[in-house]
Amino acid sequence: MELLKQKILTEGKVLPGGILRVDGFLNHRIDPQLSYEMAVELKRLYEGAGVNKVLTIEASGIAMAVMAGYVFGCPVVFAKKSKTKNIAGDVWSVEIESFTHGNTNTVIVAKDYLGPEDRVLIVDDFLATGSALIGLKGLVEQAGGTVIGAGIAIEKEFQNGGNELRAQGMRVESLAKIAAMTDTGIVFAE
Amino acid sequence: MELLKQKILTEGKVLPGGILRVDGFLNHRIDPQLSYEMAVELKRLYEGAGVNKVLTIEASGIAMAVMAGYVFGCPVVFAKKSKTKNIAGDVWSVEIESFTHGNTNTVIVAKDYLGPEDRVLIVDDFLATGSALIGLKGLVEQAGGTVIGAGIAIEKEFQNGGNELRAQGMRVESLAKIAAMTDTGIVFAE
Repeated sequence: MELLKQKILTEGKVLPGGILRVDGFLNHRIDPQLSYEMAVELKRLYEGAGVNKVLTIEASGIAMAVMAGYVFGCPVVFAKKSKTKNIAGDVWSVEIESFTHGNTNTVIVAKDYLGPEDRVLIVDDFLATGSALIGLKGLVEQAGGTVIGAGIAIEKEFQNGGNELRAQGMRVESLAKIAAMTDTGIVFAE
Repeated sequence: MELLKQKILTEGKVLPGGILRVDGFLNHRIDPQLSYEMAVELKRLYEGAGVNKVLTIEASGIAMAVMAGYVFGCPVVFAKKSKTKNIAGDVWSVEIESFTHGNTNTVIVAKDYLGPEDRVLIVDDFLATGSALIGLKGLVEQAGGTVIGAGIAIEKEFQNGGNELRAQGMRVESLAKIAAMTDTGIVFAE
């Protein structure tokens, strides 16, 4: 998606440790018009696939996911990183390792909100090692639902998580795929 | 806002301890059409007030905030609950006590994303004691910006946070104001 690639090139910063800082438009300050355009592109890619639910994980996936739900015309569920007093009853649960934070979280979805009737598009801002996506896929599978595919803003293809999931047969669509990042620049795949 | 009140009456549940569970449409499963309609209502209320930034706090405020930014045509910033490796440089920072989680968080915004030119609408899903709103207002003041007002989905008016802030001169608009909650029902203010 050209608009997103241009944003990454003009506003993104490569930090030491393989971190791409895009918090000026994606995950701290958000450009809501871009979130909307990304959702429209996901709708184009998944047209006719029968998506009836969008699933993401708090916090930075929510902006893109809520726009996706708006454009697809379906509910959005965000998986939560810890149990709060406001979640009653039983939950689906997985462990997800965070590349960004260097820790592991128990991630839950209330059973009320994910079930066998759901045809799920998993949305997230980043795909690197794939741990978040694998975890969210696991939640859908626990619920007996169907994973239609994933819609990712930025995939760090060189970290291989996306290609491993594709090799297993999962549909993964990324709006910007990064093949390499160096101090001197960002190289997109394809 | 009638649509939101009807949702609360038909889908909300009152739990022991003064907790209103609305996670079926507001803060776990999200109804994105409702998020959009709430944003349109905030735009109507704050028409002409010169809002040029929306500020919220992760995670459950993000859905409504990103829709507000989309409708207002301005960027959205979400304050973060802890410092991650992806935030570089200096930050504005406050301590916020969480009624829901029973703990205190350090909440930050990168200085790059909040400054003296900002005329800020603070958006959140809930207003009870007002601690989150006071904290977010404090971040804007640290940055030298202007708080235009707050746009809240559900205010628990009986917990007084909103009225204390109004008494101090802050504009606080809540789309549904709850005067009382009992086992037998919810009573709206006005």
